[in-house]
Amino acid sequence: MSETIKEECGVFGIYGADPAETAHIIYSGLYTLQHRGQESCGIAVNQDRKVKFVKEQGQVKEVFSPMILGQLTGAMGIGHVRNAVSGTNSSVDAQPLVTRYRNGPLAIAHNGSLSNRKQLRAELEESGAFFQTSTDSEIILHMIMRARKNMVAGSLEEAVVSAMDKLRGAYSVLLMNASKLLAFRDPQGMRPLCLGRLNGAYVIASESCALDTAGAKFVRDIEPGEVLLIDGDGLRSIRTHCGKPSSLCIFEFIYTSRTDSIIDGQSVYNSRQEAGRILARSHPVEADLVIGVPDSGLDAARGYAAESGLPLGRGLVINRYVGRTFILPGQDKREAAVRIKINAMRAEVNGKRIVMVDDSIVRGTTIDQTVKLIKDAGATQVHLRIASPPFLYPCYFGTDVPSRDHLMAVNFSLEEIRKKTGADTIGYLPFDRVKGVAPDAAVGLCDACFSGKYPDEADDYMP
Amino acid sequence: MSETIKEECGVFGIYGADPAETAHIIYSGLYTLQHRGQESCGIAVNQDRKVKFVKEQGQVKEVFSPMILGQLTGAMGIGHVRNAVSGTNSSVDAQPLVTRYRNGPLAIAHNGSLSNRKQLRAELEESGAFFQTSTDSEIILHMIMRARKNMVAGSLEEAVVSAMDKLRGAYSVLLMNASKLLAFRDPQGMRPLCLGRLNGAYVIASESCALDTAGAKFVRDIEPGEVLLIDGDGLRSIRTHCGKPSSLCIFEFIYTSRTDSIIDGQSVYNSRQEAGRILARSHPVEADLVIGVPDSGLDAARGYAAESGLPLGRGLVINRYVGRTFILPGQDKREAAVRIKINAMRAEVNGKRIVMVDDSIVRGTTIDQTVKLIKDAGATQVHLRIASPPFLYPCYFGTDVPSRDHLMAVNFSLEEIRKKTGADTIGYLPFDRVKGVAPDAAVGLCDACFSGKYPDEADDYMP
Amino acid sequence: MSETIKEECGVFGIYGADPAETAHIIYSGLYTLQHRGQESCGIAVNQDRKVKFVKEQGQVKEVFSPMILGQLTGAMGIGHVRNAVSGTNSSVDAQPLVTRYRNGPLAIAHNGSLSNRKQLRAELEESGAFFQTSTDSEIILHMIMRARKNMVAGSLEEAVVSAMDKLRGAYSVLLMNASKLLAFRDPQGMRPLCLGRLNGAYVIASESCALDTAGAKFVRDIEPGEVLLIDGDGLRSIRTHCGKPSSLCIFEFIYTSRTDSIIDGQSVYNSRQEAGRILARSHPVEADLVIGVPDSGLDAARGYAAESGLPLGRGLVINRYVGRTFILPGQDKREAAVRIKINAMRAEVNGKRIVMVDDSIVRGTTIDQTVKLIKDAGATQVHLRIASPPFLYPCYFGTDVPSRDHLMAVNFSLEEIRKKTGADTIGYLPFDRVKGVAPDAAVGLCDACFSGKYPDEADDYMP
Amino acid sequence: MSETIKEECGVFGIYGADPAETAHIIYSGLYTLQHRGQESCGIAVNQDRKVKFVKEQGQVKEVFSPMILGQLTGAMGIGHVRNAVSGTNSSVDAQPLVTRYRNGPLAIAHNGSLSNRKQLRAELEESGAFFQTSTDSEIILHMIMRARKNMVAGSLEEAVVSAMDKLRGAYSVLLMNASKLLAFRDPQGMRPLCLGRLNGAYVIASESCALDTAGAKFVRDIEPGEVLLIDGDGLRSIRTHCGKPSSLCIFEFIYTSRTDSIIDGQSVYNSRQEAGRILARSHPVEADLVIGVPDSGLDAARGYAAESGLPLGRGLVINRYVGRTFILPGQDKREAAVRIKINAMRAEVNGKRIVMVDDSIVRGTTIDQTVKLIKDAGATQVHLRIASPPFLYPCYFGTDVPSRDHLMAVNFSLEEIRKKTGADTIGYLPFDRVKGVAPDAAVGLCDACFSGKYPDEADDYMP
Repeated sequence: MSETIKEECGVFGIYGADPAETAHIIYSGLYTLQHRGQESCGIAVNQDRKVKFVKEQGQVKEVFSPMILGQLTGAMGIGHVRNAVSGTNSSVDAQPLVTRYRNGPLAIAHNGSLSNRKQLRAELEESGAFFQTSTDSEIILHMIMRARKNMVAGSLEEAVVSAMDKLRGAYSVLLMNASKLLAFRDPQGMRPLCLGRLNGAYVIASESCALDTAGAKFVRDIEPGEVLLIDGDGLRSIRTHCGKPSSLCIFEFIYTSRTDSIIDGQSVYNSRQEAGRILARSHPVEADLVIGVPDSGLDAARGYAAESGLPLGRGLVINRYVGRTFILPGQDKREAAVRIKINAMRAEVNGKRIVMVDDSIVRGTTIDQTVKLIKDAGATQVHLRIASPPFLYPCYFGTDVPSRDHLMAVNFSLEEIRKKTGADTIGYLPFDRVKGVAPDAAVGLCDACFSGKYPDEADDYMP
Repeated sequence: MSETIKEECGVFGIYGADPAETAHIIYSGLYTLQHRGQESCGIAVNQDRKVKFVKEQGQVKEVFSPMILGQLTGAMGIGHVRNAVSGTNSSVDAQPLVTRYRNGPLAIAHNGSLSNRKQLRAELEESGAFFQTSTDSEIILHMIMRARKNMVAGSLEEAVVSAMDKLRGAYSVLLMNASKLLAFRDPQGMRPLCLGRLNGAYVIASESCALDTAGAKFVRDIEPGEVLLIDGDGLRSIRTHCGKPSSLCIFEFIYTSRTDSIIDGQSVYNSRQEAGRILARSHPVEADLVIGVPDSGLDAARGYAAESGLPLGRGLVINRYVGRTFILPGQDKREAAVRIKINAMRAEVNGKRIVMVDDSIVRGTTIDQTVKLIKDAGATQVHLRIASPPFLYPCYFGTDVPSRDHLMAVNFSLEEIRKKTGADTIGYLPFDRVKGVAPDAAVGLCDACFSGKYPDEADDYMP
Repeated sequence: MSETIKEECGVFGIYGADPAETAHIIYSGLYTLQHRGQESCGIAVNQDRKVKFVKEQGQVKEVFSPMILGQLTGAMGIGHVRNAVSGTNSSVDAQPLVTRYRNGPLAIAHNGSLSNRKQLRAELEESGAFFQTSTDSEIILHMIMRARKNMVAGSLEEAVVSAMDKLRGAYSVLLMNASKLLAFRDPQGMRPLCLGRLNGAYVIASESCALDTAGAKFVRDIEPGEVLLIDGDGLRSIRTHCGKPSSLCIFEFIYTSRTDSIIDGQSVYNSRQEAGRILARSHPVEADLVIGVPDSGLDAARGYAAESGLPLGRGLVINRYVGRTFILPGQDKREAAVRIKINAMRAEVNGKRIVMVDDSIVRGTTIDQTVKLIKDAGATQVHLRIASPPFLYPCYFGTDVPSRDHLMAVNFSLEEIRKKTGADTIGYLPFDRVKGVAPDAAVGLCDACFSGKYPDEADDYMP
Repeated sequence: MSETIKEECGVFGIYGADPAETAHIIYSGLYTLQHRGQESCGIAVNQDRKVKFVKEQGQVKEVFSPMILGQLTGAMGIGHVRNAVSGTNSSVDAQPLVTRYRNGPLAIAHNGSLSNRKQLRAELEESGAFFQTSTDSEIILHMIMRARKNMVAGSLEEAVVSAMDKLRGAYSVLLMNASKLLAFRDPQGMRPLCLGRLNGAYVIASESCALDTAGAKFVRDIEPGEVLLIDGDGLRSIRTHCGKPSSLCIFEFIYTSRTDSIIDGQSVYNSRQEAGRILARSHPVEADLVIGVPDSGLDAARGYAAESGLPLGRGLVINRYVGRTFILPGQDKREAAVRIKINAMRAEVNGKRIVMVDDSIVRGTTIDQTVKLIKDAGATQVHLRIASPPFLYPCYFGTDVPSRDHLMAVNFSLEEIRKKTGADTIGYLPFDRVKGVAPDAAVGLCDACFSGKYPDEADDYMP
């Protein structure tokens, strides 16, 4: 029921598995990364220098049947889930992007967003390139090909390293040709990417939870700037681009990643509880019960309750049958739509002063309805606590957030927001404590959505 | 992740609404009752003595589009959700059953199961009837028509009262003809049924949560044995069959109903927490953390934690994208399938002694995998606590439970079950305390699934 | 491209086939009868006293997959194709109607229309019956059950014979219980029904072309009024209702039946050619070329050409990819829609005086466009010849014709029709020669649509 | 029922129409070209320098709904129908191929097949290109971009002319950028392409029948080698590549094109009748009736009858409901499948000596069944006449014919073929008269499938 911020992608790859199992393992991985993208998905596998692939609009469960998985045999493969702006043409943007080049098949899957996309496309077009998709993947491929052409006798991984000189912004990429699998992450490490081991095979995933469900053991995160190469000779790394200041997206902890993932050393679950604890210390209130807005506010509520000593309750019940595309027909049905999705637990909240914790407010379009549900069910007070600072700046690195015009905290004062939500008091996580939510993180954090301080030059950012 | 016991049906009706709103309100009600049946659903509305209806296999979100709802205009209507044994012919069994009789259209929707179904069908067939469905609704209609024929100048409600003399078992029924809506509940009140008010209209639903989401106010439960009549003159009750010993299905509290419903005076949420408290007292254990198996074990875990003083944690994460028909292709994939559906929270359980609470064990097919997940994530001990007594006897009253052969508690001793689940200790809710889970219930309770003491004669129960 | 008059049904049954082949043979039969109904279809098979069935909205090719056919095993079975008035509820009217009665399963499929349907339903409802469909099949079943109940120890076939005393109008019925297959045809023989032999099995079909494609040999037509019984003892007939004046629908020859069928002794192909010959004699014209409107006017054009001595050409080409539900989006697209469906052959008609033959004019909504196409392609004159008399009266016996208000010949004079169509001359088949189109028919003919002389009492005909 | 030879594509474009009508006109054009490709189709329209497009697997009627057409607004657009080898990945090959280049959007649709495809791809890959599809369109685009890059200040049309220096084989192409529509045809004119006028707009189509149904007037054929440019200044031609010996595919007349098309001056209908006449002169026979195998043998049968003086009859009836993907489940069902698709007209052929005319024999997999049907219906003799010479060589120019191994005439002598078909006599169109079938054609003809004399160098033909 939290407002959705669509993360644009998740990737999953495997090298060295039983050819009959590869697609099934990728399938389980993509299923687990489904929260990173629900619009389209795809799997490409490589067998005997031939790539077979299926990609389509729809969720993993809709696109892949047992029959289809059974046909996708191959000892290595990559997969992708994606959120796309809906439109008539979006199906061509589904990934992996599967192409042929001089040395045979080449498939790519990518999470993130290039911040110099506009400029790179213009340069490439000027030199005779044409583009069939609007994906960054196609830009990256062109840059790799161009790098390769300029080298005397370069390998694919050398071309990648060279192309990375020109790429700016966020990219966690899987690239597969006939004989090897490459995984590389932008030098700032803005999007997560990790490595696991499944029996003899190597597994790469956007989040560690996908390693778990694939049955793999977590090995380590791919370093910011690292190019990882897996082929018949095993695993090697090129670290030419490593060692720069890193800036992992802090929203991965607040909202994007699954709570059971551990990203660059930091448990997402612990991070959210910590945000709740910080919030309890900075915005205490006299109340009877702490509740979380399911599902993304539940962990922070747990932390708030623990720190404040208040009991933790279950104040809201989600209807688990409501689909992704739920629309209530008719005009003026916003209230009715919210009631179908979520209901207040009268037996829990009636007559009580409630602390209601949510992860963030972006557009702020449904939070008032949720407060109203709690009050209609008999709560005497509702104290709204938001486990992140006010969301003030757009993101150009792969998180689909609205333009500033639609950001609630841009347009209204704190008191106005409180009134609009109908809450008795409101409290945001203080900005100066936000990096405290990821105390175990081994990398730097990007908090541009709260601070406006982007980790890269901003002059060519694209809307 | 708990093993599913399919409740066979949910009903929802409305009288006196804006004709353009009726179907939308029923839609929101059925959406909220979806947990009572996911195989098929239907809505029938009545306008100017004509009944329009749509019923089909599929969930509410699949069957009803805005366009379809827009066509279903009428000032009264009834709806139904249903679980059916899958098979080629099951679509004819979707409800409401819409028929024509002497006085025009007649539509019926029913939750429950007649225990003398076999005998009634045989008698009716002997007298020339033929059956187009395998539903109890069709039997009930025949019985009402027969009763009516034998009366000199009887009304529909009188025929219903007369037919109830012959019907045995569980039935909560909505019946609609051209001018009135009837709601009746079997004299034992085995399945729930309640009344609400939505502005000027009357609303009837299987559970109170559906009143909430429709925006209606709860008025009262339909009494066991009551025949409620709603027409142009308002609301009347016939209580000829009231006043007998009642026996509401206790499983409605343990598993079937939604946690935010209040049934015959008892909050389901409170009931489940109470079960957890009883369990904590009867089966205490030295441990570090209590977790519930989502979603149905979460409330009992809350009660266990509160009573035991142990902290309550989030030990398992559900993949919310997994669909109803999730099947993992290939052999020997049971473990992989469980991992896609559910993952253990390593950050929470690692190194701890865990109390894991689930609502019940019926077949016992997945609980071992869940225990294994927790242990693989580092738990040093898992103490399994089940918030209901051992499930020992089949149900003939509308809950789709397996035959005794498949009931785990029938086939194995407590110690064998513990070993099979892989738990370090196991504890069931003591049978002699089971009725304590619904201290506020205004009716008697049926615990036949635990005791074998059926509330009706057992000689003609059907398999 | 001729205006469609929807025949409401076709039936096909088989007894004594290899259980694995039964559904496949019915499938081929229904595929061949698809022109008699495209809205829904169904197959019911009987094995070991159990009936399995699949019926759904859609054409045969849409409803039946190899997998479904593979599941429908049984040594006897019946099938049905149907045109239904479209609407939200029509799926419940799909046939065969599968029911259970005292002696087990009972399935029925029917072609035709009862003329006393209204009265029979009223009587049955008065005596306590209720109806779940709007099919005549359900009425017929009730009448059979009622007849059966009144007999001391009657068989199903005796009950059928008795029920036929009360049924009026058109019905060609297949009825199957656990052990036998019955086929019966109304005493006037208004709809066709014939018997064939396929190796050891008996086959019944609405038209002989379905016997051909099933690989069966035509044996004979079912007589008007005959009740044919097929069971383990072979074939028997009850002819109690035979011998009355018969009145087979003449439109079966003009439009409804497939040209390769032979019905009650009369080849449909020959009949249509004969209509063309009569037309050539009654409405000769000086011209250069005869063309037929495909597909239903082609045979009559052939006859016209042969009789007149004029050459026969191919003046119009149909787009075979245009689907049943072809709709051209946008306003004022009638002309564009016709052009997509049909195109004139400029190389054939340019500069010529054309005789254009069609089978009938009912609503007259597209014939003007067709004339225009021919003229636009260079024809100097178009002489329209209609191979049936003016269509003046509605049909109550199973042909879905519009009410009189929409019949072109009711609303306009011959000269007005000529002008509206844009033809230079127009000529209909003279009414006094219409029975000459079926010189080989062994039965009488109903020409009520042209004459208004209905073969049965008209006082209770239903709209 | 004739064996299918899949033509690989059809194209349709329009410039200067009402933006709201463009997609509807292309839709009607593609519907009419559906016989040239049924696997996938697409439409791309251009408005304000933005291209919107929809392309998918399926027939025109399946892919385009009124809603979709309503969204595709733009004053110019191109469309495509295609046959593709089925496979998991073929959807990416659907056309038009829509890309972006330096000057904005660029869309291409193509019919034909490059004979030096292999070599061009290799060269392009060597220079750093990668390919996302397996279409010739993508190769052509790369060649145009490369040509453009090498020019100082060239226009798109100049780049096309330059690229044509390198392209070999068959190509009829539509190319659209933000401001202009180009149509170009290979110098040999192997595939048809014609120009029409629809009010103020220009229309380009693979066949003239698509101009008819779009309501356009035929203007002229695009010349072999011509590059036609349509933009705001009207129509211009570049004829640099014109004037070489031309070789239009003769199979366009025999089978591929629709009978109502006129291609390079030759009516397809007349051509087929002429083939029948030649056949009657070269292979006369004493018989009672001439029939054609529907649909592609009907016109030739008409010519045979006219020339021989024998009557023309309707010996075979097609089931118009049989879908494109008709498969009869089960083993050994070939005979049953043929019977469902086609039936013999007993009333016409019984007791007669039949001349049966078909357009061609390629694989020869069903002709024996058709002969058998006629004989089973009582024909005393069947004289098979084939309206083209023996099919002996594969085609590399856009007609999907099997390898030589599967060509009947390669593997068997004339007498063997006669025996296999079950015919009493057999006669092919004499090879030395084949060019006589298109006496009005203004271009040369390719008869390589009969002669093996390919119009281009054969050393790099691809399988």
